[in-house]
Amino acid sequence: MPTDHDVPQATRDAPGAPLAPVVLGRETSDAERSRTLATSVTTGVLSTVACDEDGIPYGSLAPFGLDSRARPVFCISELAEHTRNLRADPRSSLLVARPSAPGADPLANARLTLLGRSVEVPEEDIAEARAAHLAGNPHASYYVDFGDFSLWRLEISAIRYVGGYGRMSWVDVDGWHAASPDPVEPHAAGAVEHLNADHAEACLLMAQHLGQRPDATIAVVTGIDRYGLDLVATGPDGPGRVRLGFDEPVATPEAIRAATVTLARRAREAAAAPGG
Amino acid sequence: MPTDHDVPQATRDAPGAPLAPVVLGRETSDAERSRTLATSVTTGVLSTVACDEDGIPYGSLAPFGLDSRARPVFCISELAEHTRNLRADPRSSLLVARPSAPGADPLANARLTLLGRSVEVPEEDIAEARAAHLAGNPHASYYVDFGDFSLWRLEISAIRYVGGYGRMSWVDVDGWHAASPDPVEPHAAGAVEHLNADHAEACLLMAQHLGQRPDATIAVVTGIDRYGLDLVATGPDGPGRVRLGFDEPVATPEAIRAATVTLARRAREAAAAPGG
Repeated sequence: MPTDHDVPQATRDAPGAPLAPVVLGRETSDAERSRTLATSVTTGVLSTVACDEDGIPYGSLAPFGLDSRARPVFCISELAEHTRNLRADPRSSLLVARPSAPGADPLANARLTLLGRSVEVPEEDIAEARAAHLAGNPHASYYVDFGDFSLWRLEISAIRYVGGYGRMSWVDVDGWHAASPDPVEPHAAGAVEHLNADHAEACLLMAQHLGQRPDATIAVVTGIDRYGLDLVATGPDGPGRVRLGFDEPVATPEAIRAATVTLARRAREAAAAPGG
Repeated sequence: MPTDHDVPQATRDAPGAPLAPVVLGRETSDAERSRTLATSVTTGVLSTVACDEDGIPYGSLAPFGLDSRARPVFCISELAEHTRNLRADPRSSLLVARPSAPGADPLANARLTLLGRSVEVPEEDIAEARAAHLAGNPHASYYVDFGDFSLWRLEISAIRYVGGYGRMSWVDVDGWHAASPDPVEPHAAGAVEHLNADHAEACLLMAQHLGQRPDATIAVVTGIDRYGLDLVATGPDGPGRVRLGFDEPVATPEAIRAATVTLARRAREAAAAPGG
């Protein structure tokens, strides 16, 4: 995984371009980002080979769940084109994208393509696959047991992750299986909002005194994950990314709060210290 | 276009199954629904042939605009997998789906797959294609003129429309080109909400006295398009769909209002008539 844990270097070849990032602590790997994304989104786009249309790659909507080996499980109808396509040729991929806010740049959002071969779930795995699909897509309870629907899973052979502009990699398939989704992802947006709305001064102190940006006059939290906080700190020389790691990975909203309180206290102590 | 203007017949083989629909007036064709959908959504999923991955169909995010011949226009980077794929094999499709509301069944929503071959836009069409792409995706103004981005368009050879459960067809490509998007689509959701919130009694009278459902005790408007209103009327024998056409196609919010006022007046007159 050559690009995992890598940080894209900001370039500074134009006036107003972002400052080089300050990274303190562990970053989330692209394998972890991929697993987190695939766990937080439950409908993707399945691409199959349109056998009756000259082999043109054919995109269709596909609700999915992940089984215990992190394979997407689909519940598809014999009436649907993708099912006929897969019966003739198992090559397929699943695109999973975080929904874009209205008006936002869709290409700034993270997405993931899982490539491989889709196969009908064998008898012995049906119970687990059925539960995995329903966990992702409870609406399927209306049709999962109909005779003309069947459960399929994608056996993954390659993974492409695009985290937005300038962040993309082929994720190692073994790394995908070994990684775990971020347990605090469902709480991250709320925590970011809370920090910016109610603790802007503490966030600025963190950027100035822990994040090596003493010049900063504004600091905005842009993300929280199990390993730390992302901020954008802006000073007279422009904006720059600051990454502050937590002492330990966090797994709950309470642990996010405790870890950010610790960072804020440390920043205040540093500010109050001689020369701080 | 054998399925255009067809109405899927509700079956009545189970207790509580919907009553057969009452259809009065013109329905929107699947070609028109397809053009409307492709005009109201500006990011799709492009499926290409992954040349370095054993020809596996590869899905990727693709903002697009439609040119004057209703071909999707993409602005893609030489750094992106889909561009490399298309340079080796032009076969590709674009899936366009209406975003699903959180918690709603994603397969109840309309979607569309445009299949064909993507080609780089020839020099003489660049200006028009550039404008078409930017109209759909203004964020592209940041990179459309970069040297490593180029404009491509999908030459459509087949079109699959899925309008939700039980409504799907292959749309004739000539029909796609001849059809026009619904001019009132951007106003339809607001008009539906207004009718149900403020004119429930008038809607019930329409279902009872114009829609051949004198037994109805509840009527809910479920859709408005240029040609008419869709309602679900429920009475002692269960729910049934009612389609009421306007006298003339409408093109503005004011024309929707005038056409629905006309229907409501006619329903009241029918209710007040002897035997009404």
